[in-house]
Amino acid sequence: MSNSFGERYRFTIFGQSHAPAIGVTIEGLPAGFAPDMEKLAAFLARRAPGKGRYSTTRSEADAPEFVAGLVDGHTCGAPVTAIIRNTNTRSEDYAELYRVPRPGHADFAAAVKYGLARDVAGGGQFSGRLTAPLCIAGGLALQLLAEEGVSISARIASIGGETEPQAIQAVLEAAKAAGDSVGGLVECVCQGVPAGLGEPMFGGMENRIAQAVFAIPAVKGVEFGAGFAVAGMRGSENNDPFYFDELGVVRTRTNHHGGILGGITSGMPIVFRAAFKPTPSIALEQDSVDLTAHESVKLSVKGRHDPCIVLRAAPCVEAAAAAAIYDALLESRC
Amino acid sequence: MSNSFGERYRFTIFGQSHAPAIGVTIEGLPAGFAPDMEKLAAFLARRAPGKGRYSTTRSEADAPEFVAGLVDGHTCGAPVTAIIRNTNTRSEDYAELYRVPRPGHADFAAAVKYGLARDVAGGGQFSGRLTAPLCIAGGLALQLLAEEGVSISARIASIGGETEPQAIQAVLEAAKAAGDSVGGLVECVCQGVPAGLGEPMFGGMENRIAQAVFAIPAVKGVEFGAGFAVAGMRGSENNDPFYFDELGVVRTRTNHHGGILGGITSGMPIVFRAAFKPTPSIALEQDSVDLTAHESVKLSVKGRHDPCIVLRAAPCVEAAAAAAIYDALLESRC
Amino acid sequence: MSNSFGERYRFTIFGQSHAPAIGVTIEGLPAGFAPDMEKLAAFLARRAPGKGRYSTTRSEADAPEFVAGLVDGHTCGAPVTAIIRNTNTRSEDYAELYRVPRPGHADFAAAVKYGLARDVAGGGQFSGRLTAPLCIAGGLALQLLAEEGVSISARIASIGGETEPQAIQAVLEAAKAAGDSVGGLVECVCQGVPAGLGEPMFGGMENRIAQAVFAIPAVKGVEFGAGFAVAGMRGSENNDPFYFDELGVVRTRTNHHGGILGGITSGMPIVFRAAFKPTPSIALEQDSVDLTAHESVKLSVKGRHDPCIVLRAAPCVEAAAAAAIYDALLESRC
Amino acid sequence: MSNSFGERYRFTIFGQSHAPAIGVTIEGLPAGFAPDMEKLAAFLARRAPGKGRYSTTRSEADAPEFVAGLVDGHTCGAPVTAIIRNTNTRSEDYAELYRVPRPGHADFAAAVKYGLARDVAGGGQFSGRLTAPLCIAGGLALQLLAEEGVSISARIASIGGETEPQAIQAVLEAAKAAGDSVGGLVECVCQGVPAGLGEPMFGGMENRIAQAVFAIPAVKGVEFGAGFAVAGMRGSENNDPFYFDELGVVRTRTNHHGGILGGITSGMPIVFRAAFKPTPSIALEQDSVDLTAHESVKLSVKGRHDPCIVLRAAPCVEAAAAAAIYDALLESRC
Repeated sequence: MSNSFGERYRFTIFGQSHAPAIGVTIEGLPAGFAPDMEKLAAFLARRAPGKGRYSTTRSEADAPEFVAGLVDGHTCGAPVTAIIRNTNTRSEDYAELYRVPRPGHADFAAAVKYGLARDVAGGGQFSGRLTAPLCIAGGLALQLLAEEGVSISARIASIGGETEPQAIQAVLEAAKAAGDSVGGLVECVCQGVPAGLGEPMFGGMENRIAQAVFAIPAVKGVEFGAGFAVAGMRGSENNDPFYFDELGVVRTRTNHHGGILGGITSGMPIVFRAAFKPTPSIALEQDSVDLTAHESVKLSVKGRHDPCIVLRAAPCVEAAAAAAIYDALLESRC
Repeated sequence: MSNSFGERYRFTIFGQSHAPAIGVTIEGLPAGFAPDMEKLAAFLARRAPGKGRYSTTRSEADAPEFVAGLVDGHTCGAPVTAIIRNTNTRSEDYAELYRVPRPGHADFAAAVKYGLARDVAGGGQFSGRLTAPLCIAGGLALQLLAEEGVSISARIASIGGETEPQAIQAVLEAAKAAGDSVGGLVECVCQGVPAGLGEPMFGGMENRIAQAVFAIPAVKGVEFGAGFAVAGMRGSENNDPFYFDELGVVRTRTNHHGGILGGITSGMPIVFRAAFKPTPSIALEQDSVDLTAHESVKLSVKGRHDPCIVLRAAPCVEAAAAAAIYDALLESRC
Repeated sequence: MSNSFGERYRFTIFGQSHAPAIGVTIEGLPAGFAPDMEKLAAFLARRAPGKGRYSTTRSEADAPEFVAGLVDGHTCGAPVTAIIRNTNTRSEDYAELYRVPRPGHADFAAAVKYGLARDVAGGGQFSGRLTAPLCIAGGLALQLLAEEGVSISARIASIGGETEPQAIQAVLEAAKAAGDSVGGLVECVCQGVPAGLGEPMFGGMENRIAQAVFAIPAVKGVEFGAGFAVAGMRGSENNDPFYFDELGVVRTRTNHHGGILGGITSGMPIVFRAAFKPTPSIALEQDSVDLTAHESVKLSVKGRHDPCIVLRAAPCVEAAAAAAIYDALLESRC
Repeated sequence: MSNSFGERYRFTIFGQSHAPAIGVTIEGLPAGFAPDMEKLAAFLARRAPGKGRYSTTRSEADAPEFVAGLVDGHTCGAPVTAIIRNTNTRSEDYAELYRVPRPGHADFAAAVKYGLARDVAGGGQFSGRLTAPLCIAGGLALQLLAEEGVSISARIASIGGETEPQAIQAVLEAAKAAGDSVGGLVECVCQGVPAGLGEPMFGGMENRIAQAVFAIPAVKGVEFGAGFAVAGMRGSENNDPFYFDELGVVRTRTNHHGGILGGITSGMPIVFRAAFKPTPSIALEQDSVDLTAHESVKLSVKGRHDPCIVLRAAPCVEAAAAAAIYDALLESRC
């Protein structure tokens, strides 16, 4: 089903932006694991709203309450459930959106799929807020992976096509000033992943990571290693030559394959990039339709929205990668 | 598990390049459906080897035998199983590859994962040949989708960075002459997909299509709609304005979202692209390692290999898309 | 994974007896459904502890809080999550059980599986208390099935081998007086189930209902229709003759098949029985072992325990059946 | 989906009684495993038809052809697919059954579910013949379990209510002479199963074994340990006292729990029984309906049928148990 991910490290995300709570239930955590709650809080803080100049001004503690699965701070073998209360909801902002879907947003698709019953407040279940429970599941996977020598780090590769901090700053200022938004690119590098994870065909690491990463709202493309550039390359150029390193381990001199061959990890770093579209909610006037009155209308989105979601996306990408990799790691043991 | 795809239209692929057979078992076909076997044969012929100047010279009938699930040419409700016998196998070609993994190929990952027991002949289960059963499952889904007014068409968007036929021809000739290979880009357009298919988060149409498409060997990137270009766009530019068409149906003036909003189909055409790396098996000498002797070696791959897999990739991409969309279509009914 | 059930009506149960909360996340509820919360409360009250003379004296409101998936009392298409806070916990009762497993209880198996980290308080995740979230998921399924004309009713068929109220009363009194417990039999009848639900082989209705019912602690046997008696019958005796009823519907004169033929519903009532073992926690002295001191010990279980779990089991059996049947009903639509 | 079983040892069964073939695809076999094909053949022979006086006279070699997954007799890590050709088919026997469903058989349910397209020949996908691929998957699991010290043995506990060979013989003769059939009981004991397999709730060993065993046609009840007798027992009687054996291993003095506590194996033998109904196909005249003419008719089933399916059921029960236990064993490792 749509809200669950994974086979052996399996979690189910629930909640809507303005429901009483959002949260996650995780199966597959080893018994006796003591999550580092401070580290998890720091990880969650990286994606939390209300901090930066270009983030929504909605500010919430976003402190997860672990309601099940822990005894004295240790996992006991039962599923772990954490919830985050939605304390700062302003449902009145969203009434108009019930009739008028925002261009580029899930509003219209939700209207078709769920009809009158859909939760339109704050984007409902399509809200970027649902990446918080993803970051809980992924954050715990990161801690467990760290014990295995795996580290995962995502960074902003570009925003609005710019790669330099100063240029990015200018792009953001301009977008904000214009009541507009801007997209960006996140690159993720996973170091220390053992060779042999993943399965051929549909269970390949590319398949799994892509399935996880496309769950982050606004992602429209995922590429591994040299990615789309491979389409213009020759085999002699793209193939990564093998060699034995000083420890006698097989490695490749380049990493165009992004750490994945035939769907299976090669022992080289997994490298992938995700393209994020600009936040669809913008103050600029746009053409839309009134689904009730059945007529064309102009829409200018009010409310608090990030002009650039990418600024908070890196931990979400890390979380998605960690979930997929830890799941494959567990699977490789049986 | 890795060789199965789908929830309601679910199929399991089996076989290796040089096993007695390859094949697929499909669950979820409606009872009473009469597959058009000529149409299926024509579809499979589009991906079959041994036809063109730039394809492997291995030539096989690749005619599937339906051993279960049909009665008098109609599905009876039981799972449908089709097998294709591997008639033209030359296992002796591949002995050296057991010791020396081909750069860019799954050989090394397979060695790590399955050890001495792995099937190295013809790429074993990692062979592009396994896309034949994928095309059986996808080909039947295409026929069922056609009855629902859905048509899916993939085309070569570029090869070696070239988009014009003549330039592509030149790129291919040059690669072949050099004992090299070349990558390419396939674009797929799915028309007539009803709005409302797919689920939020992990069951989104992007997630599902990506999971299916990354199962095709050599795919290193998948993007939807404007794809990676969104990373450089502004919201006002990327957002697709809504309007009512002459029939009163909500549509968008542009299709940067590629027919998918919030993971759910919008009713606009699904558009996506897949980047294929160059065939890793090339005649040019490459650096590799001898896993047995534990030393560096030079490798020049012998045997029959496509200098460009992309020429045969379009039906595979259509098959993957069809499987994902038909699965979501069935799911949307319950 | 172990805490999830179902394909289309899919729910995941979480919590332990003495965790902050227990609960359930349900996927597959139709959007726009308004659960009758009073009816659900009444259903949950049938299994709640602390009411009768033979029930544990632990008394809890057991009122579920719906933290996600509802908007103004209607499902919105997002997963529905309900939690029940564990307000009345007395963890100090259970310290000895950490060392000394109760005969007949899951204590020992949990010790093997989860080691020192296991949650021993109140039986942890093995507690009968986890049937409360099962009853939430099943209770909502019951309401949706009622709209389809399906009604499900379970009753106590026997306790301690007795079938008459007065004799049952005597058996219970005697067991309670002796510091002992007693088992029983629950029979469940599902009326109005449409013909054609379920799948051959592993997805048959017997397989699904059994999978759900064996999740209720203490169930050691499940039988359908004539059940174990079929082993002693002749075909001419067991086969249920077909006829057309006054409405032209095919029915059977007897119902030894319990409404299921070849795993698929026949349109006759589904009838099945579940055997419940006596509550393993008894005051009477028993032989056990001290896992820490590695020696034989005598154990007399303190704390509050039902002398007969069967008195509260009927709604749990109904919930399990409802979940399995509603899941198959949804599945039959795609 | 209905034709697949298992999470880590996962197999999909396909075929119908009179299709070109039946077979199975197995995922999860370890690479490098060399199945003992003679042992497998001997195992399959125990369930094969056409041998005894009370078995159908249909005689087939039932020799599986392994078309995928093996290299030089060893698993290579790819899924293993085996098919059995249906050589001895007599479809003309079954024409009448298309109109007139056999009482007690899946015919009617199949008619409702699949309509005119259903495969009625030989019971189609509901045929007992589909237990042959189950026995292939289970037979390989038995070999792998044997390497872990696990042995599984099922025996006929009773037929027609009789437990003694001579009385069973008489019951069978009488049934055959009368053109009737008779049911029976199979008991299965699994020795050497390590403690700690299985999961709480829906993934318990009782749930899994029941899900597998109810896939065998004709099974109407499954019970574990003391089974239905627990309903009449007291806790002090049913609870199995713990002790340390001479090797310091925790064991129980009795085994009313049948080796499973809280869904998890205790290390004691898993003991369960399955009740088989009499073969529904009998020569004796029965009341049925003509689904086409819409009228009551008399039916006397022609063709070759076992008067007692139980005689061939024991290996099927062993196969089902082996599949469930080996799956749980693999799962316990990750």
